[in-house]
Amino acid sequence: MVFELPPSASRAEVLRVRAGELRPAVTDWLAEEVPIAFEVNGLSHAIMLASPIDLEDYALGFALTEGLIDRVDDLLDIEVEPAEIGITLQLRVTLRCFMRMKERRRVLAGRTGCGLCGKDSLKEAVQAPKPLISSTGLDGSENLYLSKAALQKAQTELLARQSLQRQTGAVHAAAWCDGEGAVQWVREDVGRHNALDKVIGARASGLAEDEVSTAGFMLITSRASFEMVHKAVTARVPVLAAMSAPTALAVRMADQAGLTLLGFVRSGDMVVYTHAHRIDTGCEHHGAGKDSTWT
Amino acid sequence: MVFELPPSASRAEVLRVRAGELRPAVTDWLAEEVPIAFEVNGLSHAIMLASPIDLEDYALGFALTEGLIDRVDDLLDIEVEPAEIGITLQLRVTLRCFMRMKERRRVLAGRTGCGLCGKDSLKEAVQAPKPLISSTGLDGSENLYLSKAALQKAQTELLARQSLQRQTGAVHAAAWCDGEGAVQWVREDVGRHNALDKVIGARASGLAEDEVSTAGFMLITSRASFEMVHKAVTARVPVLAAMSAPTALAVRMADQAGLTLLGFVRSGDMVVYTHAHRIDTGCEHHGAGKDSTWT
Repeated sequence: MVFELPPSASRAEVLRVRAGELRPAVTDWLAEEVPIAFEVNGLSHAIMLASPIDLEDYALGFALTEGLIDRVDDLLDIEVEPAEIGITLQLRVTLRCFMRMKERRRVLAGRTGCGLCGKDSLKEAVQAPKPLISSTGLDGSENLYLSKAALQKAQTELLARQSLQRQTGAVHAAAWCDGEGAVQWVREDVGRHNALDKVIGARASGLAEDEVSTAGFMLITSRASFEMVHKAVTARVPVLAAMSAPTALAVRMADQAGLTLLGFVRSGDMVVYTHAHRIDTGCEHHGAGKDSTWT
Repeated sequence: MVFELPPSASRAEVLRVRAGELRPAVTDWLAEEVPIAFEVNGLSHAIMLASPIDLEDYALGFALTEGLIDRVDDLLDIEVEPAEIGITLQLRVTLRCFMRMKERRRVLAGRTGCGLCGKDSLKEAVQAPKPLISSTGLDGSENLYLSKAALQKAQTELLARQSLQRQTGAVHAAAWCDGEGAVQWVREDVGRHNALDKVIGARASGLAEDEVSTAGFMLITSRASFEMVHKAVTARVPVLAAMSAPTALAVRMADQAGLTLLGFVRSGDMVVYTHAHRIDTGCEHHGAGKDSTWT
């Protein structure tokens, strides 16, 4: 990198009122939020607001979960460059991916959509990714059976590693954890989608191609919306453990895609929404009827 | 409205683990998240994911804060229609607004940007809205002087009125409150930006044109990012009180725009980031140096 990234946090003088009493003015740390322009093979693609850290991971993760590329090797180069305001991420992708992206854009233009989020139709916006469970069980996650101890271990480790959150109180984190709950990658961002993209990118570049399917789970400090589940499934994550609530649409997509979705994961508590077979709930027979979403 | 909106919450059977112990399967309420397509004068504009409630408010608020229209009267009609998946909001705006929107789009197309969020350049993405404080003081907010009691009253009232949050634990709320802390409009949504747009729309349509500048404040259950501050300033809100943290970019924009930004507003606590003159902190002289962001 040829230039210095802006800091991930900066100081400001603030007034604090505690229990109704004004305290002396103090200096506080605030999380930075920087506009990031994605350019793909020279074509401007998207503008996001994000924490200016781990931007190569972000670029790779975003490219994967947004379907700009299909695999790590489709991304040929990433350049992080200063812009008049914010930062530009210059991605260079294979000709095949670039032609596909241009074709999508051409279709959009022809259909008059401005293409917010690159999607023109409702159908395209909520398109389901390829399901996780295949008849061949190739993704390796069918042998995953997470213990409650592993989930608690991951929470404790993640908490200890949320340095920007400790400093600012304003950012989310996502962590990829192995089957025993050991945190392997943690990334933080003012945006929960960005934090997830970053750790997906870190994991994808950190593992050799044949290891990407290693069993493990993703722990996020936020809620689980449709988009979070979509990104997780696209990245072939078998279990998404959210510290807060999921939405109904997220649960339906997780159910259809074969993703185990956990919510309200806090200390010894959790709610299992879908595909409980990957979780050791301490109960051999889950007792779900045929209409259950968590078979 | 000629069709029934989808429910704002739906039921699913879930497994609960509490303090490490599996509980019997129960039925839980989940917040719905529905894809919403915005069409403006027949032209598709954006696709958002939102709670399917108060959609007319959402349409008006979104149109105002995204700069599609300049004032309530620019929006001639709103139709809420079922779509193959989700809901379409058909907005009809004045010819002047429509021509401006098409011109922006033409410029985008010519510059090859896909126009994510309708913005092509970093500069446009973080463009500052018209500042709140003018030399004429026309917006009426200069007489606003919020007491701590008003802020606490608003929090208590808002909490009591978050019905979807009580049911699902998965949604944010935004409330417009008068100078004494009485909540006038509350709106909920799975997205914090949407909740804010909805209450801005409710307020704009609920007040006569000459009342829109009535002094009061906006209370949000979420963090205050750049986009939240941008929307508040665009809607001429003088005080944004967030229950969680702001970002540094949000604080800088609030400072420049003349918005009073409060964070971590919980019970008797708060942090004042900018323009403390609208808040009764219990201290006549705020003691800020010239470099303070909260003068």
